[in-house]
Order: sequence, then C-alpha cells, then structure tokens
Amino acid sequence: PDEQARTQARAHLDTLTKPLGSLGRLEDIAAQLIAIHGAAPSLPLRKAVYTFAADHGIADEGVSAYPRAVTRQMVLNFLHGGAAINVLARLHGVALHVVDAGVDADFGGIPNLIHRKVRNGSRNMLHEPAMSDEELAKAIAVGAELAQQASAAGMQLIAIGEMGIGNTTSASAITCALTGASAAKATGRGTGVDHAAHAHKIHIVERVVTKHCPENTPPLAILQRVGGLEIAAMTGMVLAAATHRITIVCDGFISTAAAALAAAIAPEVKGYLIAGHRSEEPGHALLLSYLDLMPVLTLNMRLGEGTGAVLAMPVIESALALYSRMATFASANISEASQ
Amino acid sequence: PDEQARTQARAHLDTLTKPLGSLGRLEDIAAQLIAIHGAAPSLPLRKAVYTFAADHGIADEGVSAYPRAVTRQMVLNFLHGGAAINVLARLHGVALHVVDAGVDADFGGIPNLIHRKVRNGSRNMLHEPAMSDEELAKAIAVGAELAQQASAAGMQLIAIGEMGIGNTTSASAITCALTGASAAKATGRGTGVDHAAHAHKIHIVERVVTKHCPENTPPLAILQRVGGLEIAAMTGMVLAAATHRITIVCDGFISTAAAALAAAIAPEVKGYLIAGHRSEEPGHALLLSYLDLMPVLTLNMRLGEGTGAVLAMPVIESALALYSRMATFASANISEASQ
Repeated sequence: PDEQARTQARAHLDTLTKPLGSLGRLEDIAAQLIAIHGAAPSLPLRKAVYTFAADHGIADEGVSAYPRAVTRQMVLNFLHGGAAINVLARLHGVALHVVDAGVDADFGGIPNLIHRKVRNGSRNMLHEPAMSDEELAKAIAVGAELAQQASAAGMQLIAIGEMGIGNTTSASAITCALTGASAAKATGRGTGVDHAAHAHKIHIVERVVTKHCPENTPPLAILQRVGGLEIAAMTGMVLAAATHRITIVCDGFISTAAAALAAAIAPEVKGYLIAGHRSEEPGHALLLSYLDLMPVLTLNMRLGEGTGAVLAMPVIESALALYSRMATFASANISEASQ
Repeated sequence: PDEQARTQARAHLDTLTKPLGSLGRLEDIAAQLIAIHGAAPSLPLRKAVYTFAADHGIADEGVSAYPRAVTRQMVLNFLHGGAAINVLARLHGVALHVVDAGVDADFGGIPNLIHRKVRNGSRNMLHEPAMSDEELAKAIAVGAELAQQASAAGMQLIAIGEMGIGNTTSASAITCALTGASAAKATGRGTGVDHAAHAHKIHIVERVVTKHCPENTPPLAILQRVGGLEIAAMTGMVLAAATHRITIVCDGFISTAAAALAAAIAPEVKGYLIAGHRSEEPGHALLLSYLDLMPVLTLNMRLGEGTGAVLAMPVIESALALYSRMATFASANISEASQ
C-alpha cells in the first residue's frame, strides 16, 4: 500500500462535515483502500467471492458433526444457488466463483464449477503430511491463477471463503503452529460437535501439531503438513492478489488461517487484508490478533463459504462512498470545532 | 411481536442448508422481523431514516466543541445532500427525512425540511426543565405523527437519528436517570471536547441530574426535564412506530436514549427495536445493556444523524434474504448432522 496516499486520505477525511474521527473504523477502511489503489476508486467496486472446496483426510477421525459427503453436496448447492453465500452474493452484487480444489467426488464436467481438483481430498495428517510437495504447489497455484484472472477482469475487492468437512481441524492446527496457542484454546466446535467430540477434536489437533509442527516450523511447511487443499489455494490467492493491488476480505476461521499463512510467508500482504467478521470459533480471534486485524462485523456467525466477508462488503463500500461524496466544512460553510 | 411466528421462524431457520445456529445474530434478526410482521416481508424492505434536529439550552454551558450554529448549518447540509447520512441513505436505498423539531434558527419555508419546530431550542436545564408540559407534548406528537405517516406510506424499517449541538449532555443525563449510572460513567466526549471540557461536562450532567431526577423519577418527567426536543420527537416516533408494527433501528447514544425512554414508558416497544451499532460514547453501552440489545455493528463511530442505523440496514435485509431464499436440507438433498 501507498503510505503517502493513506496520509493524504486521512487529511481529506478531516475536512469532511463530521467531527474529527467520528466515522471510526470506516475512516481506517477508506484510507486503506486508497492506500491500496493510490486514489479513491469509483463505486460500485467490482467485487467477487471465491469459495474454495476440498475434502480432508482428517475427517476420517470423527472431527466433524457432518459426514464427508456434505462437501460434495454443498458444492452442488452452491451451483444450484441455494446456499447462504449464493443469497448474499446476489443481494450485494458480488460475483460468486465456486472452485473445486480437492473435493473427494467426481463432478464430471459439471458447468459453473471451476475445476481445479488437485487430489480427492488431502491426506490424513494424523499419519502423514496433508499434501505432498507437488500437491502443495499445485494447490497454491490454483489460487494464484484465479487472483490473476480476477485482476484481469478488473476486480477490486475479493472475498475468500471455503467449504470442507474437517477443515476447522486444519485451521486449529495452523493456529497452534503460527501463534503458539494450545490446542484447547485454538479448537472450537466447528459445525457443532458435542462436548465429547470436541474433547476428541482437541486431542487430534494436539497430536497433529506435535507430530508435524515443532517450534519455528516455516509457514509453507505448516501449510503442507496440517493445511488443506482449499486452504493452500486461498493462501495462493492472497499472495497473488496483493501483488495485483486487490483488497482481500477474509471470511471466518479457515480463510483467515490461509491469510495468516500468506502473511507469515510475505508480511507485506497484511496491508491488503480486511477482516470481514469475527466468527464464533475461538481460534479466529487468535488469528485476527496475530494479523493485527479488527473485524468489520461480529455477528456470532460460524458458517464459512465467504458469508461473513460478503456481508462486510456494503460496509466497506459505504466507507468509500463517505470519503468520496461528503461535503467539506469549507464547501458547506460549516463552523469548525473550537478545540 | 408475534411469539408464535417467531417460534415458527426459528424452526424454518433450522431446516436451511447450514449448521444449526451458524448464522448467529442474523437468525435472531430474521426471527424478530418475522415476529413483528407475522410473516417474512418481501425484499427490498421499504426503509426510511428520520433525522430530527433541535438546539439545546444547555449548550450555553460550554459542553460542546462546536458552536450552536452548527445545528442549523448541518440541517442545511442535510438539505443540500452533503452530510454522511445523505451519502449512506442514497447508497442503501433509504428515504431520508429531515425534521426541524426545535432548531434555534429561522428556516423560512425552505423546501424538503419537515417544519415541526416546537421552540427555538430547549430551555437550559441547568436552571429549569428543558421543556414545559406543552412543549413536551408537542415534541412527542411530532414523532408520533411522522410514524403514522411512515406507516401510511408502507414503511417497514425506520431508522431514527439526530443532530443537535449539546445533545450528548442530555443523553448522558437521561442515562444516569434511567440506569442509575454516575455522571462520570455516562458522560463521554461527544463531538470531541478536550480533557478539561470533559470534566466540566461531567460536572454539568451531575448538577442537572441532581436537580431534576431524584431516584424513581418517571420516564416522562426525565424526558421533560433533561431531554431535548429532538429526543422527545424520537421517543414519540418509537412509541407510535411500535403500534404500527414498524421495526425501529436505533442509531447512537442519543437516539438510543430516546428509545430507552420509550421502553421505560411502554415496555412492549422493546420487541420492535434493533440496535444499529454501538457508538464510542460510554453511555451508549449502558443504554444498550439497559434495553438488553446487542448492536449489529461496532465500528467506533460517534456521528449520529442516523448513520450507524442506516449502515446496519443491509445486514438486516441480508438476514431476511437468507431466511427467505436459502435451500433446505431436504430440497437440496444434503445430509444432516449426526448429533
């Protein structure tokens, strides 16, 4: 981001007809977008959401309330327009792209799905790294390629979201490895497991982290060993989107884990990230604090798909609209503060 | 609100293709709207924001960083379309109505302003009640009349906002009187007074509350003695809107003070209230807790005008869209949770 543009944006915000700083976080968001674009982009922004789907070998260990088949079923739901992300994307003028990064199912040549299956689900990380070197590289490339396409299509604001039964277990392991948090602190109930299954899930995360992520494991190795194919794709998208000056809106726990890995690999991507919301998953707060991001929304959601990120987009656009369209004290002939 | 409709709405939400409860607060909001309307209203909702302006006698005591003339100047800014509320209302399809409930200025017959001036500013509550009996009744009637008009025009979701130099002092006094909080806890920096002026403002609030609001002062008496003309108008709007089954979105500290008074007068209005956001003013959190409302947004805003309420409207409509447009587990052939 262009720090000079950010400073100029701050100065302009202080001339608008409102008490200094009274738009709060909206002022930070407007200044960030202007720092990214060099000037205020016109509205509406060109917006997209990428929902990456993949299965997880670790789902065999009984870490989710839902059977693995739900990943495939939800992808079909996305394609038929019936999921939460479809409803929100349509309502807010956001183009939805559904990506098969590694679902354990054969979609044939079904249309409207971006077919980028790296493998039929990641490997079971309790026994081996979730991905081979080659699978990791391919999955990262999926996201990078789509970021490049988004840039070519003129997209300015993209949300990353996901679907993958078992993937909160991966996100918890990543959180432990990046932040040093205990499995107990970083592991939530995901789609809603009961107390006993939650204890079991914590135990699985503990074993996986102990096996694969000794202190100071490099972020790429964390991703390979305890990540997932959709997570690697999102990490690739964040890394590439930042180089194209696209603002990335993170969704919940899993997409933020992918963004945190991207930031650990290339710290400069942080300036391109906005946290759409803070989910109910306890590990999400740890990651937001690790990334030093304040969420736009806190609505106790825990759905994923990109829903929290898309829901934040009207707020983000509002911030820019206020920046570009409000009158100044001078133009409106309004008395300034005495202090 | 219709509790049977709310229960049915909850049951419907549990059939949608998402983990149980995973839409968090959005599920509460959808169920509330359905309880208010008896069924899911179609989208887009018909939305309006009423921005009530008035001056305050207490402004003579140096409680604001801005001169009193700013109330009039900002009303003109609203009419010319340059204020934050204009930008947000246009962006989100919300009809803006600007109401002169008691600005200390002569607007002549200027168009697009709703002329309902009760008096040229409230009285200085340091010396006498802010309003006479008659002024109180007239100001309440202003809001009630406009709620009736909104209902006749088919409005379903209305935001209340305000503009009035000095009105956070009133809101702080109301907060003390309703919640028993100390002036120090209920008094913030308003538009941005410095440390010394803040201490002075706390002292003024203390004196005003001691003078006018002994323990158990009835809410209508609180409103009359330490309220303001725009605050009374908003209280009247909330009371009347609830009887017309209109959902009211509160904005910041001052509009929530008006809503809290309405709820103290007629507790059943609580079911019609949504807190658009939580502002930076410390007293706002006290009032939200008094009303048992969770804010939709927390963006560190402290502007008023209705801005935080209008900004919450896309989230509120999103909640309804999800309710009405998502597929069910049965229709999408998706496996349900095992637990």
